Amino acid sequence: MRDDDFIRGNIPMTKSEIRAISLSKLLWKKNLIVYDIGAGTGSVSVEAALAVPAGRVFAFEYREEGCNLIRRNAKKFGVGNITVVRGMAPETFQGLPVPDCALIGGSGGFLEEIMDRLFVMNPEIRLVLNIISLETLARAVSYFENRGLEAEIVSVTVAKAEKAGKYHLMKGQNPVYVISVGGTGQFHVDRR
Amino acid sequence: MRDDDFIRGNIPMTKSEIRAISLSKLLWKKNLIVYDIGAGTGSVSVEAALAVPAGRVFAFEYREEGCNLIRRNAKKFGVGNITVVRGMAPETFQGLPVPDCALIGGSGGFLEEIMDRLFVMNPEIRLVLNIISLETLARAVSYFENRGLEAEIVSVTVAKAEKAGKYHLMKGQNPVYVISVGGTGQFHVDRR
Amino acid sequence: MRDDDFIRGNIPMTKSEIRAISLSKLLWKKNLIVYDIGAGTGSVSVEAALAVPAGRVFAFEYREEGCNLIRRNAKKFGVGNITVVRGMAPETFQGLPVPDCALIGGSGGFLEEIMDRLFVMNPEIRLVLNIISLETLARAVSYFENRGLEAEIVSVTVAKAEKAGKYHLMKGQNPVYVISVGGTGQFHVDRR
Amino acid sequence: MRDDDFIRGNIPMTKSEIRAISLSKLLWKKNLIVYDIGAGTGSVSVEAALAVPAGRVFAFEYREEGCNLIRRNAKKFGVGNITVVRGMAPETFQGLPVPDCALIGGSGGFLEEIMDRLFVMNPEIRLVLNIISLETLARAVSYFENRGLEAEIVSVTVAKAEKAGKYHLMKGQNPVYVISVGGTGQFHVDRR
Repeated sequence: MRDDDFIRGNIPMTKSEIRAISLSKLLWKKNLIVYDIGAGTGSVSVEAALAVPAGRVFAFEYREEGCNLIRRNAKKFGVGNITVVRGMAPETFQGLPVPDCALIGGSGGFLEEIMDRLFVMNPEIRLVLNIISLETLARAVSYFENRGLEAEIVSVTVAKAEKAGKYHLMKGQNPVYVISVGGTGQFHVDRR
Repeated sequence: MRDDDFIRGNIPMTKSEIRAISLSKLLWKKNLIVYDIGAGTGSVSVEAALAVPAGRVFAFEYREEGCNLIRRNAKKFGVGNITVVRGMAPETFQGLPVPDCALIGGSGGFLEEIMDRLFVMNPEIRLVLNIISLETLARAVSYFENRGLEAEIVSVTVAKAEKAGKYHLMKGQNPVYVISVGGTGQFHVDRR
Repeated sequence: MRDDDFIRGNIPMTKSEIRAISLSKLLWKKNLIVYDIGAGTGSVSVEAALAVPAGRVFAFEYREEGCNLIRRNAKKFGVGNITVVRGMAPETFQGLPVPDCALIGGSGGFLEEIMDRLFVMNPEIRLVLNIISLETLARAVSYFENRGLEAEIVSVTVAKAEKAGKYHLMKGQNPVYVISVGGTGQFHVDRR
Repeated sequence: MRDDDFIRGNIPMTKSEIRAISLSKLLWKKNLIVYDIGAGTGSVSVEAALAVPAGRVFAFEYREEGCNLIRRNAKKFGVGNITVVRGMAPETFQGLPVPDCALIGGSGGFLEEIMDRLFVMNPEIRLVLNIISLETLARAVSYFENRGLEAEIVSVTVAKAEKAGKYHLMKGQNPVYVISVGGTGQFHVDRR
């Protein structure tokens, strides 16, 4: 889905290419329980919700503006299987269904606590992280190393052409680290 | 899906991140007729076929080794809606169902002829190109410019961590240009 | 030299990393005649002038604002061997000393005419191009191909950390194509 | 200088573009004492030595093969102001002249000890690091943060065209983090 299709406020949005890569590493069938942590505008939540029509997406976001955007985007795309949860993860996980997988786009500084909690809820959870700061990258790498988990770590750098007169100028986007780890049964991705 | 999941020969394979981005720009519902032109190992065909269970993927490939790999990968993933077509596009399109969308991963030097033919078959076709050479990039940009088509052009550069002792070294992959153009009705990507 | 050291107006400036790479491919001794074509703020001219103290840099720029910036930056850095030439290349080359090397940062659409003229003036000229548009890239690649010249073509993508609270966020810059070609005697770069 | 100009063994060499960027951030006049730590093939040492003809480069390398390569490359380029020091930094610094600047291309795991020692020898030393592993990146960022030093951190991703028939294919190189910090008087880079 295109970035321009989403209603956007002042909240940074995961760009479409990063969304596509992240969801391809996160989802493998249609009835998953998905946590979208630091859901922002809800672009990931909406696209994930469309990909798991028999499942459910929980969108965790602590900013009121973000929660409103997620609801508006869900409505715009006619998506009924998103639940917006306002507050600070991981305490907002309390009482919710056990996730099959989780995308962490923002952690409010509680990265380790969030991952600890997720692994307690489901030791075989599939996790994908979108990281833009060197500090969070270091903490994530260190976390998985300490747990003996072999994570896949990729950095993705996208440039997009903009028209300037008759020229296409390539405009650089910010690089994103996409880390994925854990899960079983992802061998055969099958969304039929 | 992971690159390692596919059976690979001596034929270059589209990397998983490029596949995810390309398919996210190519497909928008479950019953599409998809052309995968220069299908190589069939990794794009297989993943597309899983995403359009009510549709069909035609995998065009001129190398015998490639055709065999596509068939083996389709079988491995239990995919029944791929038709392998051996030969040189665009003449191999003859007599086949009109495509809703096409991914061009290789053109055997016939890029313009292939696109001309696709636009004749379906003037509203959705096209995605994966390009790795500067010459093909120039020809594609020029083709769309001459037709007055506003294409989206992105370059994608991925690096992937490799373990060396206790260190993660980032290993650069080759940059790929992903161009997408045309189509209608892609506003609402919905694979439910 | 740091970008912040230069006086900047509304004219785009070659970033320090691109400058360093380009000059390393352009210069090989201290007494060169250097053409800086599309000199902009003069950052390349100033740094080149410092590297060829026994030579001379001709900074070609058609915008009055650019010419003023180049003069102010030359003065700021105490550089006496820059000559600012206002107007549109290649006609501004008329009557000037034959260049040993030239950096083309902007061509005002006259890329081929500029290079034709440079090769007439000095068939063994060393050329470096900084390119940001796909159209200019295509024209440059095609030009060297038609002349049978084997150019080195690199794309350079830089991201720079910005501090946001206690985090370093990587901010992407626009990718630049750096093409270099021609010259003799560059084997032994020696600025002593 | 071109990578192919250097004699190379089985030791990884800093690529020319990274060398150019690193030296542009490291050197600012002709009479500097430069430490090249983890000197490898000596490509950085040789290019630095040519840029500081009135200064001296100390090339620290613990592999015998590396030390030989450095000597051979220094000889090939007629460079007389390089001193090869075999052994493990920082103890190999003992008794040597105080450095004005140092490039750390490899640390043998002793990154903090090396930097501690360098800052003791010269509190205003100019430091540039070339980093390819996420672990070393994390340690470097953390080190400067703890010391209250504002480092400049850039990542550099280069792709280089290779000819395949009549096509130029862009081949990705490994991304390198270049961190620079410290120093005074670098405002006016002047190698005249």
